[in-house]
Amino acid sequence: MAGNTFGEVFKITTFGESHGQAVGVIVDGVTPGVELTEAYIQKQMDRRKPGQSSVTTPRKEYDVISIKSGMFEGKTTGTPLFIMLENKDMRPEAYSDIQNAFRPGHADYTYLQKYGIRDHRGSGRASGRETAGRVAAGAVARKLLEHRGVQVVAYTKELGGIRCETYNEEVIEQNAVRACDPDAAVRMIERVEQLAAAGDSCGGIVECRIRGVKAGLGEPVFDKLDAELAKAMLSIGAVKGIEFGAGFAAAGMLGSEHNDEMNASGFVSNNAGGILGGISTGNEIVFRIVVKPTSSISVPQQTMNIHGEEQQIITEGRHDPSICPRIIPVVEAMACLVLEDHYKRQAAMLG
Amino acid sequence: MAGNTFGEVFKITTFGESHGQAVGVIVDGVTPGVELTEAYIQKQMDRRKPGQSSVTTPRKEYDVISIKSGMFEGKTTGTPLFIMLENKDMRPEAYSDIQNAFRPGHADYTYLQKYGIRDHRGSGRASGRETAGRVAAGAVARKLLEHRGVQVVAYTKELGGIRCETYNEEVIEQNAVRACDPDAAVRMIERVEQLAAAGDSCGGIVECRIRGVKAGLGEPVFDKLDAELAKAMLSIGAVKGIEFGAGFAAAGMLGSEHNDEMNASGFVSNNAGGILGGISTGNEIVFRIVVKPTSSISVPQQTMNIHGEEQQIITEGRHDPSICPRIIPVVEAMACLVLEDHYKRQAAMLG
Amino acid sequence: MAGNTFGEVFKITTFGESHGQAVGVIVDGVTPGVELTEAYIQKQMDRRKPGQSSVTTPRKEYDVISIKSGMFEGKTTGTPLFIMLENKDMRPEAYSDIQNAFRPGHADYTYLQKYGIRDHRGSGRASGRETAGRVAAGAVARKLLEHRGVQVVAYTKELGGIRCETYNEEVIEQNAVRACDPDAAVRMIERVEQLAAAGDSCGGIVECRIRGVKAGLGEPVFDKLDAELAKAMLSIGAVKGIEFGAGFAAAGMLGSEHNDEMNASGFVSNNAGGILGGISTGNEIVFRIVVKPTSSISVPQQTMNIHGEEQQIITEGRHDPSICPRIIPVVEAMACLVLEDHYKRQAAMLG
Amino acid sequence: MAGNTFGEVFKITTFGESHGQAVGVIVDGVTPGVELTEAYIQKQMDRRKPGQSSVTTPRKEYDVISIKSGMFEGKTTGTPLFIMLENKDMRPEAYSDIQNAFRPGHADYTYLQKYGIRDHRGSGRASGRETAGRVAAGAVARKLLEHRGVQVVAYTKELGGIRCETYNEEVIEQNAVRACDPDAAVRMIERVEQLAAAGDSCGGIVECRIRGVKAGLGEPVFDKLDAELAKAMLSIGAVKGIEFGAGFAAAGMLGSEHNDEMNASGFVSNNAGGILGGISTGNEIVFRIVVKPTSSISVPQQTMNIHGEEQQIITEGRHDPSICPRIIPVVEAMACLVLEDHYKRQAAMLG
Repeated sequence: MAGNTFGEVFKITTFGESHGQAVGVIVDGVTPGVELTEAYIQKQMDRRKPGQSSVTTPRKEYDVISIKSGMFEGKTTGTPLFIMLENKDMRPEAYSDIQNAFRPGHADYTYLQKYGIRDHRGSGRASGRETAGRVAAGAVARKLLEHRGVQVVAYTKELGGIRCETYNEEVIEQNAVRACDPDAAVRMIERVEQLAAAGDSCGGIVECRIRGVKAGLGEPVFDKLDAELAKAMLSIGAVKGIEFGAGFAAAGMLGSEHNDEMNASGFVSNNAGGILGGISTGNEIVFRIVVKPTSSISVPQQTMNIHGEEQQIITEGRHDPSICPRIIPVVEAMACLVLEDHYKRQAAMLG
Repeated sequence: MAGNTFGEVFKITTFGESHGQAVGVIVDGVTPGVELTEAYIQKQMDRRKPGQSSVTTPRKEYDVISIKSGMFEGKTTGTPLFIMLENKDMRPEAYSDIQNAFRPGHADYTYLQKYGIRDHRGSGRASGRETAGRVAAGAVARKLLEHRGVQVVAYTKELGGIRCETYNEEVIEQNAVRACDPDAAVRMIERVEQLAAAGDSCGGIVECRIRGVKAGLGEPVFDKLDAELAKAMLSIGAVKGIEFGAGFAAAGMLGSEHNDEMNASGFVSNNAGGILGGISTGNEIVFRIVVKPTSSISVPQQTMNIHGEEQQIITEGRHDPSICPRIIPVVEAMACLVLEDHYKRQAAMLG
Repeated sequence: MAGNTFGEVFKITTFGESHGQAVGVIVDGVTPGVELTEAYIQKQMDRRKPGQSSVTTPRKEYDVISIKSGMFEGKTTGTPLFIMLENKDMRPEAYSDIQNAFRPGHADYTYLQKYGIRDHRGSGRASGRETAGRVAAGAVARKLLEHRGVQVVAYTKELGGIRCETYNEEVIEQNAVRACDPDAAVRMIERVEQLAAAGDSCGGIVECRIRGVKAGLGEPVFDKLDAELAKAMLSIGAVKGIEFGAGFAAAGMLGSEHNDEMNASGFVSNNAGGILGGISTGNEIVFRIVVKPTSSISVPQQTMNIHGEEQQIITEGRHDPSICPRIIPVVEAMACLVLEDHYKRQAAMLG
Repeated sequence: MAGNTFGEVFKITTFGESHGQAVGVIVDGVTPGVELTEAYIQKQMDRRKPGQSSVTTPRKEYDVISIKSGMFEGKTTGTPLFIMLENKDMRPEAYSDIQNAFRPGHADYTYLQKYGIRDHRGSGRASGRETAGRVAAGAVARKLLEHRGVQVVAYTKELGGIRCETYNEEVIEQNAVRACDPDAAVRMIERVEQLAAAGDSCGGIVECRIRGVKAGLGEPVFDKLDAELAKAMLSIGAVKGIEFGAGFAAAGMLGSEHNDEMNASGFVSNNAGGILGGISTGNEIVFRIVVKPTSSISVPQQTMNIHGEEQQIITEGRHDPSICPRIIPVVEAMACLVLEDHYKRQAAMLG
């Protein structure tokens, strides 16, 4: 109801604010008897953590996870996994200047309208810090999906107006913006550094490819696989849109162009993005999301404060000039959560 | 779990196949004591029904609804409303030729993979006929939203490559394609008729505007208002993408451009599309969806049959050359369902 | 939320009032490919219907079910089964005298307090008529449980102060009160007929035995198998208590008496009633429920009306002098729903 | 699905095993802006903790709670409260002798059957330690119910065959068995000490009274207020039955005796236990639960081990000879959770 839980069978519940004592997640519905280590999860956390390069914030979040329940002698027991991260670099005083003013692009105004009270320290619950629990839980789902032969990979497709022209999966984790085209990556980094110097930020597009999903996954009416992935992605703070397969280009296509024909080997094309009628086709699942520019910028902006007075604001602090590089492990985590949940839902139906 | 239910407080469950005996919906969580008539709901059904113009299928679906429970002396009682539509124009024999072949763009192949059994008559559960229950339930939500001062309007923004240049809300229901620009509408209709004659179909873009929603609606983590709207829209058969506010254009914008500044009167711009941090800002909520071209075309296509053999297929029958005009009441219905549910969720939190 | 849905994977949603147009149920999460007939379901409906004997109401409810979706060529398809019963013997005028007065033991007063509006015709949604949908859905669950080797049988253990002394499963469906002891049954019927003649009613105890459930079913914290069965049984109108295995007698036992010891063949006794830590032991599951006397009696009683005035009331009409005989198929149906749901939940966890 | 979550609006999710690193709870759906302190919650924890008297285990569990999120400047923010208790007195080696044998009355056998893996240290997830999270969450619900004028009190009604003859609410927290009759309490304590000395244990009956609940609470079909309370109570480890109002005695009553008549001031009697048709009447809600004798006894018992071999077992360790005194705060906590959830559900329906 209050929306801090995601999934039906493989179900996660997160808690925590950016400057509270801790953030974390309870992962429920985990298959028992599966080998799992903190190191395996930590690897995904490290991809999300700040300070990885010149294009991410130097802020230290101490993303060190600890599994506090649900494990016995190195294996999952089927009871809830509780994974926690302590907040160690809390500096609430750094936010005292924004205590009363609504930062443009942030959820300051809407939280106050919703709850009548607001934890203004570092965006509180609306902080990107909240995604730490998602990535930890997503790593558990990823481990289960490995046993199913499913692979999920996301990368920057476009950043600051620069678009990848080639696709090379090898290079993604080797450049600071996680782009799939090494040449574009160089120009993207240059662009982001320029913007950072100017106190501004930029948006981008992240693409996700999922391979190895068998045909027949997804619930065909309200819980279509694409509908669930759309919800999962739009639940990530900065995401403002999603498209599957041919996506928005389908608006200009004919049925005879968009329909994916079949031959004896299967589908000849993949305009559907691997999903038909909400159910996986067995093809690669492909979607793209648009990531808005980071809201925290040091360019002066006009805003209102809680007394209804106009004022200028400069959002100082340690912020990512683009969210794309660090959102990628979150995108993958959410995709893993949706997929593992639907595998288990399929098992439930047939079971 | 099996995904035939939508919503948490204002909750609907649909049933029915295109060529079974009936389709319909149970609407649960309805506010008691609200005046409601079958005529009010029927008005929305009539906007969805086939045969409204040259650009929609001449098929007759007899979309006459009947409320069979949950009402007493003209008012809702708070118990479930059951709304049913009998299927009267069933011609399963019309589909005997597609019994064994997988129609490109349809869910024939994926349903068989998922369930191991498939009702091939007119797409079965995957038929657009399923949306009749949604529109009926959406009309109930719309009635409750009227009391809250909320208005939801959707319209064709682009069709067959032709884009609306002006916005005139008055004309939407007065042209066969439900476009917001009367001149564009004329050219769209011409284009669709051409394509229909050629046995082909085209895609388009539908835009939805929601006015009167107070600031503070939406659950800020997984059940963000935009995340829920995204799921709702992607759960409609032909929808392949969604974007809010500036949408995919945000990929090329700077933070200083995309952030909506505020003055004492509120937000100066609306790149966010009326939602920040998953919570409504009080501004107009604006989103666009891409609608793929109708999959059923009479252009010959290559496909596979259930025996794994290649064959050609022509999807004969009575089909819409574009889905946009008839999807609009479904889009509005789903938006109404999300909104009414979130109003009640907000009441629950504060209650 | 509004509580008209039961189950998580095998999930039912009911609707309908006693004197509306219809009652029924949507059954979601049904295993696809299972052979099912209306006759199979009807058999259970006939056990629940009124007018079976001198100890049940002569009221005719026309409990003829019709499956309107989710079937294809005699098999389930995995899409929602919609099962409906039309109400044909509606005589709302028969209830005009109770329109304004609150009948003792009924939900008249509480419904009005909750909703601010009340459908007074024959108890509306609070009528036992609502259980028709449950029995229909329970029959579907029973069919799936047959394939798992599970048997559910309930019977009258005590009625009007008369207790069964022997257990003979053969005789249960052969006497009008569905008692397990034929001698006790004769005396029970005599007692009930006396009370009916006096316009009064009596309570009783129903016992349920479930055989063939494998060890390991049930979710061990909040959704314990006994917790879910307790909720299912207390959700039936006239049930005021439940106990498992040794039940309330455990209050007077020692640990050394109550603990079920094991030998190499399994459990030596069954004080636990087949459930330990919320999970099935593989033993017979045994529970008893207490059924309050029918509230509708023609003995004059003191009550209040909607204007807050005191008055006498006689609940005339066609009522069962005891609810036990007709509640038995409802008890079995609810037990089947809980079990089938938990089998599928177990499959989900392992899947 | 896996059943570690309880409630719909006011929703809790617990985690933790008795000998893992921590136990705790996420409380979601909390009203924002409510003053709350750790001390308020700790007070309830202290009622549940071991070592309070000669009739409870001397084991130290260090039930010190810490709220790690969802609070700001002493008030709830509407985001999830995370409440944790570290496990500090872990002595897993104390359980090495029961590693392979199934303790009678415990969930050892059923957990292994369900999951195929078992954390044998101190009952793992099946330990009473799990209820710490429930009591913490229940304290939050209790705080919200205080503002509604609702009071929940539970007490020992019968223990070791000794029954309370008088009702004096003042004395409940002043005697070690939390009985409502001080004379009976003296005899109960004597009885329990005898049994403890003999290495045995005894069962009892706990009664709960809830005052101040307005008429109209509860969802009338599957989520009846009594059905939800029944599930909540049966979800507590040692509870084997529940009855409302007149309870099982209703089996021997006539309708003219059991029906609660009304006069202008309301209900004259309360055989219904404060609930009619699943909805609160405004009267005191009254129910009783039966608590089985503690399973852990040092009397030698016959059992099986994981190799299928018969053996004798003595469950040594620090155990409560009766569960009643320490289950009382758990019973109250679960009742508070059900009530607060239903208040919010009612607000949702009307909202």
